[in-house]
Amino acid sequence: MALRLGRLGSGPWWQVVLGDYAQLRAASPRCASARVCQLPGTAGPQPRRGLGYGPWARGGSRLGTGLAATLAGLAGLAAAAFGHVQRAEMVPKSSGARSPSPGRREEDGDEIARRCSTFMSSPVTELRELRRRPEDMKTKMELMIMETQAQVCRALAQVDGVADFTVDRWERKEGGGGITCVLQDGRVFEKAGVSISVVHGNLSEEAANQMRGRGKTLKTKDSKLPFTAMGVSSVIHPKNPYAPTMHFNYRYFEVEDADGNTHWWFGGGCDLTPTYLNQEDAVHFHRTLKEACDQHGPDIYPKFKKWCDDYFFIVHRGERRGIGGIFFDDLDSPSKEEAFCFVKTCAEAVVPSYIPIVKKHCDDSYTPRDKLWQQLRRGRYVEFNLLYDRGTKFGLFTPGSRIESILMSLPLTARWEYMHSPPENSKEAEILEVLRHPKDWVH
Amino acid sequence: MALRLGRLGSGPWWQVVLGDYAQLRAASPRCASARVCQLPGTAGPQPRRGLGYGPWARGGSRLGTGLAATLAGLAGLAAAAFGHVQRAEMVPKSSGARSPSPGRREEDGDEIARRCSTFMSSPVTELRELRRRPEDMKTKMELMIMETQAQVCRALAQVDGVADFTVDRWERKEGGGGITCVLQDGRVFEKAGVSISVVHGNLSEEAANQMRGRGKTLKTKDSKLPFTAMGVSSVIHPKNPYAPTMHFNYRYFEVEDADGNTHWWFGGGCDLTPTYLNQEDAVHFHRTLKEACDQHGPDIYPKFKKWCDDYFFIVHRGERRGIGGIFFDDLDSPSKEEAFCFVKTCAEAVVPSYIPIVKKHCDDSYTPRDKLWQQLRRGRYVEFNLLYDRGTKFGLFTPGSRIESILMSLPLTARWEYMHSPPENSKEAEILEVLRHPKDWVH
Repeated sequence: MALRLGRLGSGPWWQVVLGDYAQLRAASPRCASARVCQLPGTAGPQPRRGLGYGPWARGGSRLGTGLAATLAGLAGLAAAAFGHVQRAEMVPKSSGARSPSPGRREEDGDEIARRCSTFMSSPVTELRELRRRPEDMKTKMELMIMETQAQVCRALAQVDGVADFTVDRWERKEGGGGITCVLQDGRVFEKAGVSISVVHGNLSEEAANQMRGRGKTLKTKDSKLPFTAMGVSSVIHPKNPYAPTMHFNYRYFEVEDADGNTHWWFGGGCDLTPTYLNQEDAVHFHRTLKEACDQHGPDIYPKFKKWCDDYFFIVHRGERRGIGGIFFDDLDSPSKEEAFCFVKTCAEAVVPSYIPIVKKHCDDSYTPRDKLWQQLRRGRYVEFNLLYDRGTKFGLFTPGSRIESILMSLPLTARWEYMHSPPENSKEAEILEVLRHPKDWVH
Repeated sequence: MALRLGRLGSGPWWQVVLGDYAQLRAASPRCASARVCQLPGTAGPQPRRGLGYGPWARGGSRLGTGLAATLAGLAGLAAAAFGHVQRAEMVPKSSGARSPSPGRREEDGDEIARRCSTFMSSPVTELRELRRRPEDMKTKMELMIMETQAQVCRALAQVDGVADFTVDRWERKEGGGGITCVLQDGRVFEKAGVSISVVHGNLSEEAANQMRGRGKTLKTKDSKLPFTAMGVSSVIHPKNPYAPTMHFNYRYFEVEDADGNTHWWFGGGCDLTPTYLNQEDAVHFHRTLKEACDQHGPDIYPKFKKWCDDYFFIVHRGERRGIGGIFFDDLDSPSKEEAFCFVKTCAEAVVPSYIPIVKKHCDDSYTPRDKLWQQLRRGRYVEFNLLYDRGTKFGLFTPGSRIESILMSLPLTARWEYMHSPPENSKEAEILEVLRHPKDWVH
């Protein structure tokens, strides 16, 4: 099914500016200058609702096996989204802010072609189709996830300096496909995967009923509910125990009912999993995410930070997978445009939040003890992903999904020792303490 | 919670005879000479029923979360049993065979004390209590699993020659406890765990209702249903890629209803996971298990062999975890005594089925490529255990269970490579073919 396109190495034409923390934080985590969009200063087009109170939030899993089945091939997209019962919203900022001008054609055909030329591969959707609907959120989101994939891959390859990304383009029989980029066993990275997928088709009756059961009015036409789901998902495992693992995922979902109403939402997040605690790194990572969130409202970061701590919890260990970041789902307010703009800001924050940390530590000296502790933490990463991560499980249990794209999130190597327990007051105990009791890194 | 007792190394006092294949097959897989018990020649005390037709077999999971919750601490016991919908039975042999003499006291107090002196630790149940009820199945089974643990640990330590077993004795707050023996990073073994547990308490109302829902009449007294569950469970991962991984588990469950009726069943199995296929080893392993089964009926091995192939299936990979062995659950016929005798025969077959194979290959020369393939197969082992194995999942999701005893089944190290695909006609492709299409090894 997968068509291997070739290998893209790092090269001088990759113009990713990688500066120090301050530069990066200042430069990147906002919409591109031509398209600054912020939440409206006063009430948005939809009434304000609290977290977890939308029709999507009531009872049961958001995407059950039925819907998951329709998403076969949506590999690696839903790293953390499926089945979640919470529902995110952004609280409108209290200060004045510009709303986007709805009538403006943001992208014309040539601009789209120019952007596509920078991607790791041509988009899943044909250029002709993207040109036909430049203002459609499906076009905007697909271009955005392709752009994010390219930015992140290039930044990573530049840091690695040796290994290349393989670019696998794959198709989904039922509609759509994806592009999976993996760099494996490099100088800096043990395994780095950045995958996008754009899939579409019809929701199964079971999936539609599940949605109705949660309060959504979805009229079907000939028992059909066309949907589109797309996203970018990535897990980066560096070799050096002092360079942390990072994961991010941003996604968009759209269902159209018989009355022509489009139901849509965004989800996503970004989180860090260090082997050892480095206070400065933790603060930098969280501050970068917070600054991205703060552009869209002051309450966003605290809510999504807590959601992240709650989600990445390895229940049987009583500890988080890492030191968190942000996580959200079912974001469908205050408007599609503004929610997209928020997600875009978050995606643009990936490189500046993470790359400086990995650059800083990728050549740190380390001992066999450090490496062993890293491998044990990798084991916990595997435990979380296989036992708890809803996206991974639904993907794996869905016939026809692309297993290799889903399991690219697993580390190259992992270790399990019976009754391993770090000594008190050790640096291993220090990170465990934070994983057991999450901290606030920025205020 | 766990009390570490100390380390038991291999020593000259371990009198395990380890000969070649033929000797071992001839010597071990039957009941001890003083207690030969076989299925009755004609109709047994219960009418014959087909596989999957008992009241326990209808719909849903055998042990849901409710019951699993009552089994907190039953760590490592139910490696493959919980939630299974099939129900095993042994078909009475057509040839004449002796039934056990029901009136005979099989064990007296001194004999029990003598047997206990050979165990890795004193039994979970106090000696006084075991002496009080020598003919009770709970006593017989506990002594049998303790004996199996000691036999297997000693045989393994003798082969390893360097590393020792740590012996952890742990208690379950709600009743009972266990003994977990682990040998880690030895000369021959990467990780070898042999755990027993004996737990008791009252079934939750939810668990009882689940059982009723499957047709069982369980009258409660003061809403209480006393149960006992016990078993021995083991996973052995050798270092050498030519020495296969082995897993076994034998268990017994008893529930008493308000009318004083005792509902009981056995479950278990033993299976082999080689990195590379060795025809001779596969035949030896399966033949030893078949000979053990054949002592109790000619149809047992084929049924339980198929059940094993079906159970250890990594669905998303379309391949089995290994080359199988036997697997059964809900064995409650033809009589408690005879079912026990069958399980005992199986448990006695563990050492002769496996130890000769590991002795034969533990010093084989191997290349980095062989080791890499072993590590990738270890990754699949982790995938099965964390994603599919019902016992592991129920254990992990049960608050208060002993995580370290459950996860001792995971290998010391594992590996995941993106898009790894062995070349055609390679020895890696050879084993994959068998994992995808199970073979009959003995006829």
